[in-house]
Amino acid sequence: MNQRIVVIGANAAGAKAASKAKRSNPEAEVVLIDRGTFISYGACGIPYYVSDAVPRIKELMSTMAGVVRDSDFFRKVKGVTVRTNTEVTSIDRAAKSLELQDRVSGERSRLSYHRLVLATGSAPVVPKLPGVTLKGIATVKTLEDAELLRSHALPGAAACILGAGLIGLETAEALCQKGMRVTLLELKEQVLPGVLDPELAVKVERQLTRAGVEVRTGCRVTGFTGQEQVEKVMVDGAELPADLVILATGVVPNVELARAAGLEIGSTGALAVDAGMYTSDPDILACGDCCQTTHRVTGKGVFLPMGSTANKQGRVAGINAVGGEARFGGVNGTSIVRVFELTAGKTGLTEAEALAHGFSVETVLSPAPDKAHFFPGAKPILLKLVAEQGTGKLLGLQAVGEGEVAKRLDAAALAIGLGATVEQLAQADLAYAPPYSAAMDNLIVAADIMKNKLVGIARGFAPQEVKRKLDQGEQFILLDVRSPAEFQEVGIEGATLVPLGALRDRLSELPRDQEIIAFCKISLRGYEAQQILNGAGFTKAGFLDGGILAWPYELRGPLGS
Amino acid sequence: MNQRIVVIGANAAGAKAASKAKRSNPEAEVVLIDRGTFISYGACGIPYYVSDAVPRIKELMSTMAGVVRDSDFFRKVKGVTVRTNTEVTSIDRAAKSLELQDRVSGERSRLSYHRLVLATGSAPVVPKLPGVTLKGIATVKTLEDAELLRSHALPGAAACILGAGLIGLETAEALCQKGMRVTLLELKEQVLPGVLDPELAVKVERQLTRAGVEVRTGCRVTGFTGQEQVEKVMVDGAELPADLVILATGVVPNVELARAAGLEIGSTGALAVDAGMYTSDPDILACGDCCQTTHRVTGKGVFLPMGSTANKQGRVAGINAVGGEARFGGVNGTSIVRVFELTAGKTGLTEAEALAHGFSVETVLSPAPDKAHFFPGAKPILLKLVAEQGTGKLLGLQAVGEGEVAKRLDAAALAIGLGATVEQLAQADLAYAPPYSAAMDNLIVAADIMKNKLVGIARGFAPQEVKRKLDQGEQFILLDVRSPAEFQEVGIEGATLVPLGALRDRLSELPRDQEIIAFCKISLRGYEAQQILNGAGFTKAGFLDGGILAWPYELRGPLGS
Repeated sequence: MNQRIVVIGANAAGAKAASKAKRSNPEAEVVLIDRGTFISYGACGIPYYVSDAVPRIKELMSTMAGVVRDSDFFRKVKGVTVRTNTEVTSIDRAAKSLELQDRVSGERSRLSYHRLVLATGSAPVVPKLPGVTLKGIATVKTLEDAELLRSHALPGAAACILGAGLIGLETAEALCQKGMRVTLLELKEQVLPGVLDPELAVKVERQLTRAGVEVRTGCRVTGFTGQEQVEKVMVDGAELPADLVILATGVVPNVELARAAGLEIGSTGALAVDAGMYTSDPDILACGDCCQTTHRVTGKGVFLPMGSTANKQGRVAGINAVGGEARFGGVNGTSIVRVFELTAGKTGLTEAEALAHGFSVETVLSPAPDKAHFFPGAKPILLKLVAEQGTGKLLGLQAVGEGEVAKRLDAAALAIGLGATVEQLAQADLAYAPPYSAAMDNLIVAADIMKNKLVGIARGFAPQEVKRKLDQGEQFILLDVRSPAEFQEVGIEGATLVPLGALRDRLSELPRDQEIIAFCKISLRGYEAQQILNGAGFTKAGFLDGGILAWPYELRGPLGS
Repeated sequence: MNQRIVVIGANAAGAKAASKAKRSNPEAEVVLIDRGTFISYGACGIPYYVSDAVPRIKELMSTMAGVVRDSDFFRKVKGVTVRTNTEVTSIDRAAKSLELQDRVSGERSRLSYHRLVLATGSAPVVPKLPGVTLKGIATVKTLEDAELLRSHALPGAAACILGAGLIGLETAEALCQKGMRVTLLELKEQVLPGVLDPELAVKVERQLTRAGVEVRTGCRVTGFTGQEQVEKVMVDGAELPADLVILATGVVPNVELARAAGLEIGSTGALAVDAGMYTSDPDILACGDCCQTTHRVTGKGVFLPMGSTANKQGRVAGINAVGGEARFGGVNGTSIVRVFELTAGKTGLTEAEALAHGFSVETVLSPAPDKAHFFPGAKPILLKLVAEQGTGKLLGLQAVGEGEVAKRLDAAALAIGLGATVEQLAQADLAYAPPYSAAMDNLIVAADIMKNKLVGIARGFAPQEVKRKLDQGEQFILLDVRSPAEFQEVGIEGATLVPLGALRDRLSELPRDQEIIAFCKISLRGYEAQQILNGAGFTKAGFLDGGILAWPYELRGPLGS
């Protein structure tokens, strides 16, 4: 008898593993089991179906050529047998067999395997709050969720979204585009916690507000009220009206089946697997959202489910299930989200994460246009680069802006994944022409500033630090080195104007015993001011990281708001 | 006396070197000399000024904050003394001094240096052809050229562009947008020679033709005729009318001064420099377009002037001129160009280049949408990946398409610059969300196909090879595995239809003794067909690289043209 590979879970990872196993060994019998009716659909596309950007739900279930990826497709095209609406109720590892239950007929049966692949995925966290089972409270995971959201997304109706992470933000955008009044509720003090440091998250929060989303951070939801249908959300003791509530506070791995079978669970609560996607049982592999994986920068186990990761892992599990020797190399924790006109994302560690992992960090905030500044349509993006002091190793990049953000993230993802240093990033031979970047790409500029910081030539002050000094009334000079015209338009309250071109002639006006923190629009001139001051013997000069464009607090002047 | 750093040439590299030298050592006197009137301008922006996309020429000469980078700016802001309209006529290396001539007054003078930086740039090739000095024959290099082009770019007038390289194509776009009748003349048999392999260059050529540019490849220009003003271009014995002729057949490094001073010239004809940008004289450095640099993939000297490279080299030369220890790490030969709706570019080596350098190569052609295929606005891009057999080392990536090409080039530029393998590229944790990529990014797909090819699982046939078989009437089956509906719309003449879903049931119709080359729209199904055939014991099965979308020849059917 040919070997039988059984894959449990027929979404990204499982469908990929099954197909790849069959391609790798056409002699093998491959059975793909799913508890649901629909399989192999693009769950990541749900918000865009809800917003009508993707008109038909079938498109989320189809191949590029427009063929629906159903059981028939898997049988004919992939040579894989699919059993939908089938629950695997237990794994008998000793006998290498599964107990199944048909979810329609209730019928039970057994199925033996030579190799088993677990791709059981993850489930949205449903907080144990009063009223959470009311109608109109939904998650964003299945096609059934997608239909529910679309049917509830009525113009003028009120939506409350719990959680300002990636899915929360995508859903906020979608519901807002459908004309709903959207309130975004987040327990943490910022949007996109874990993706962006606070000073970048502010940019996203402002975009949400501009687009009409009411953002409430640092707030706690305590329950939901209503008759059958949800009517109100209880937030910090107050009531918010809600016709639709979205639970987007994260996902948990589906590991009950594996746990019951005695498979090792990792430190994150997800399934422990090695680089070959083997669980603690050499005949059982796992892939996708149910697995823990290794973060390339920290070397530690993380639970960071992503469709991109699921596909890579599915390929490895499929190859290895039929005796191959593929390896999965871990993740950077890369993520990206579109928030109306803005794109935001990261790869590697944020500053907060790097500090939490005990790295000694240096950071750079670098705002600049995404194309040659003279090129029409150039739009600003803000990069935050995080590197390790001493080694100069790249730890992370965050990026936010209306311009081309994804490109910088992907290039940095390669660099960080390959363990590159800031110097190596600075040497990257990126594709340059005015429609695509400045002669010195944003990444190169950020890397050069980082190099200057790491060797102590550039002395940057984070906006938070400067704000603290201002708020506490510290004695220091906040030196605006822009032109008088720029100074009129927008500025930071409390700053002193000395245009860079006049600085060399006006050095006598500045005190030598005080800290002087220079800035301009992006702090390139701010940095040059520091160099001029240093050159003239001022020992306490520095610059404000990222200048006006990266300043996350209120600005003064007509363009300030 | 303080040390004096003299920099010759005040464009990208020289301006950067001078500014960086002064910042690195504020005690140093830095003198920046240029033979022209205008300095530090964005020459790469000239085509966009010609097309009116950049309305004012001042924008090409200004900083991001709108300040013109003139002598006054360099003095006040950078602390650098600029001498424009000044020709350096000779270098006395023994005395460490320069002979200068004022190009306005004719006055001669001498200037001593401690360290000299040569940033003399490059000049467009002006072919020695009869009539080449006629009026209306221009290059695309200086601001004077920019004004000449703009003033001659009149709707309905005829322009002939010699050279279908990056600048030729940018200029073709610009003049076309101004309503000129543009003919592009190229000596080689394809557009973008050295940037794209022929099967990708075809895509660019078609775009040019669609946009109204007449493209003539493989043609030789023998001269120009006209009274004072050019009127005709002689091409292969025939005459083409021309009100404006653009010479865009490449640039040569300006090394006369260095050569006369006895400095070493590299194998490419450009100045030989080491990684510290030192010439053969330890007191003379060089940077930018006048220099030879090292290709990271081949390790060999190349002359590939780019604004991005000039800036990086200028930084290194500036730091080292005042005693620092910076290094320039070479180039990938990355380039990119916008051609109307299309973007085309490369990083690393093309297949032709890799073969010429003696690499044993494997290639992948991978067409796919640039975003999730269900996402509105997803546009196709075609990638060609080149890797080394045996080591699996990445050698190059080419990309052409209407979609997001630059992102894939930049990510690959990092990977190739860091010496990554195909496996490492396949493991990249790229930023995934439907508006930005498919769950498996185009790069990951291409890398996975390459892995399958390198281990011999995937057996691809290049379009050129299949075309040859068809033309020569070889016995083989060209197997179209798309749906009947797709087959009706567009196809390859001579193909046999067996939809992938029916293939397993119709194997008996296919001969086992003949080569079977399967394909679909992108050859993902084509590859699956190969696997099904292999699984059924067909030993001579393979697939057509890149399928219909990468097929560079004529197609059959209503959508074929």
